[in-house]
Amino acid sequence: MLSTIYLIAITAEAMTGALAAGRRNMDLFGVMVIAFLTALGGGTVRDIILGHYPIAWTQHPEYVWLVLSAGLFTVLVARFMHHLGRIFLVLDALGLIAFTLIGCEVALTMGYHPTVVIMAGMITGIAGGVLRDILCSRVPVVFRHELYASVSLLVALCYLGFGEFGVKHDVNVLVSFALGLTVRLCAIYRGWRLPVFSYRQPID
Amino acid sequence: MLSTIYLIAITAEAMTGALAAGRRNMDLFGVMVIAFLTALGGGTVRDIILGHYPIAWTQHPEYVWLVLSAGLFTVLVARFMHHLGRIFLVLDALGLIAFTLIGCEVALTMGYHPTVVIMAGMITGIAGGVLRDILCSRVPVVFRHELYASVSLLVALCYLGFGEFGVKHDVNVLVSFALGLTVRLCAIYRGWRLPVFSYRQPID
Amino acid sequence: MLSTIYLIAITAEAMTGALAAGRRNMDLFGVMVIAFLTALGGGTVRDIILGHYPIAWTQHPEYVWLVLSAGLFTVLVARFMHHLGRIFLVLDALGLIAFTLIGCEVALTMGYHPTVVIMAGMITGIAGGVLRDILCSRVPVVFRHELYASVSLLVALCYLGFGEFGVKHDVNVLVSFALGLTVRLCAIYRGWRLPVFSYRQPID
Repeated sequence: MLSTIYLIAITAEAMTGALAAGRRNMDLFGVMVIAFLTALGGGTVRDIILGHYPIAWTQHPEYVWLVLSAGLFTVLVARFMHHLGRIFLVLDALGLIAFTLIGCEVALTMGYHPTVVIMAGMITGIAGGVLRDILCSRVPVVFRHELYASVSLLVALCYLGFGEFGVKHDVNVLVSFALGLTVRLCAIYRGWRLPVFSYRQPID
Repeated sequence: MLSTIYLIAITAEAMTGALAAGRRNMDLFGVMVIAFLTALGGGTVRDIILGHYPIAWTQHPEYVWLVLSAGLFTVLVARFMHHLGRIFLVLDALGLIAFTLIGCEVALTMGYHPTVVIMAGMITGIAGGVLRDILCSRVPVVFRHELYASVSLLVALCYLGFGEFGVKHDVNVLVSFALGLTVRLCAIYRGWRLPVFSYRQPID
Repeated sequence: MLSTIYLIAITAEAMTGALAAGRRNMDLFGVMVIAFLTALGGGTVRDIILGHYPIAWTQHPEYVWLVLSAGLFTVLVARFMHHLGRIFLVLDALGLIAFTLIGCEVALTMGYHPTVVIMAGMITGIAGGVLRDILCSRVPVVFRHELYASVSLLVALCYLGFGEFGVKHDVNVLVSFALGLTVRLCAIYRGWRLPVFSYRQPID
């Protein structure tokens, strides 16, 4: 189940990447790069930090093709997409959570400390979007948006916590997933967010 | 031959990096960092992604010195450089293509899938310029310019394709090189470019 | 001694990161990420480039917690911090130098060439601040500031040079540290800086 959701997730993320590139008037190639990085960049950063070689997508070229196709498809249908905004946010939420769970699993399998496992989950979940925003020269929205990264953190904590208490893996994935999705959807539809830290006094 | 061109290439790329840093009023140190990243950053990113350790330049400190000298030289002669604009673009094109071929070779030697080989070539070819542009806080020109990344892709495809059909390695390098250079020069002098994807409708 | 200073250093760096994030109105999560990257990002980049796995902080989760606590603490006391500006710059200078020495040591232990050792020291010293500035969408101050990176270079050169001449390790660390701190404090209080390279002529 997680791997089906993973495919949906990288597709959705690739599409958000392509749209961000489109807003910057990038050429087709730029669109592809941003789509790729948004979808597979998080996992790449995780694998590099954990020393988890070879990196996942180098062993699954079909993911690369899926992501590039999604980017191309987005370019073709972008003009019709504003009708799909909400569906899109839901797909993106699925992706965030699936990425997080997969990231935790990789770090767990490699025997890392729980702190690192949680961070691996979060990195996988959000680094793709951060890369997208850096390449499009804007302050990453994930740092300013409604609960996004926090959902990733919550999912990682649940997954790890339930695992500690001996909850069966499949049940664990399902429950963590449902919880994360609920919170994320509430954040979207009700505007839940973290307090913002505004600091005006220059210090240096 | 490829290694001679490689030396010319990293020199040229270091100079473009130094100029970009100069436009941002960086100090000497900043100029050196940008020169280094522009010239050797692409190979570094490739080595990290492929897990190809130790990273190339750590075993060839002379490359580091060459690149830093090129950066320093650029600072000294920058005021005379606008006469050299065109020569510069040609050197840069040589670099792009040499980097791409070298990147493909590294990935091939490590036994990666053709998709990854092509990506390794492109990463080596263009990541240095992308890093330069990110550090200078602008949307990477490679995503908006005339055929640049596309030339890298074309070269990688040719090199891999000819290799599949059993073309001798030296001939292969030569032909791929010539083809890439031709297309790149046409792009420069005739303004060939990819269609741009402009997307105005905000979605989130 | 170096490891005590290291703890002070990552704390101070985490606080500068949190303040930078606050100036961009990031939410709590963004503040944590920037604090983490500023404090531990330099060492992470060094470990990745040298192929030094597992990465330091994955084996010391307590560093992660220290850094996150420092970030949170900064958010709480930020309004009182402009009285502390100068103390802060001194802590930051301690950090810069401690990071540089630790980076050199790691590369030396792995048997890298002196050029690489110096670069490893500088990367550890300054990459965290560069990451912070990129994520906050500004040209990294390290490239435009008074002697900052140059201090890192100086410390690395001294440490390596004294080591070559057989100076005892502890003495070496102490002397390099004192020298670096002196120059850095002079740079802060007397405004020492490198010449800036301004280049206005567009070339492409």
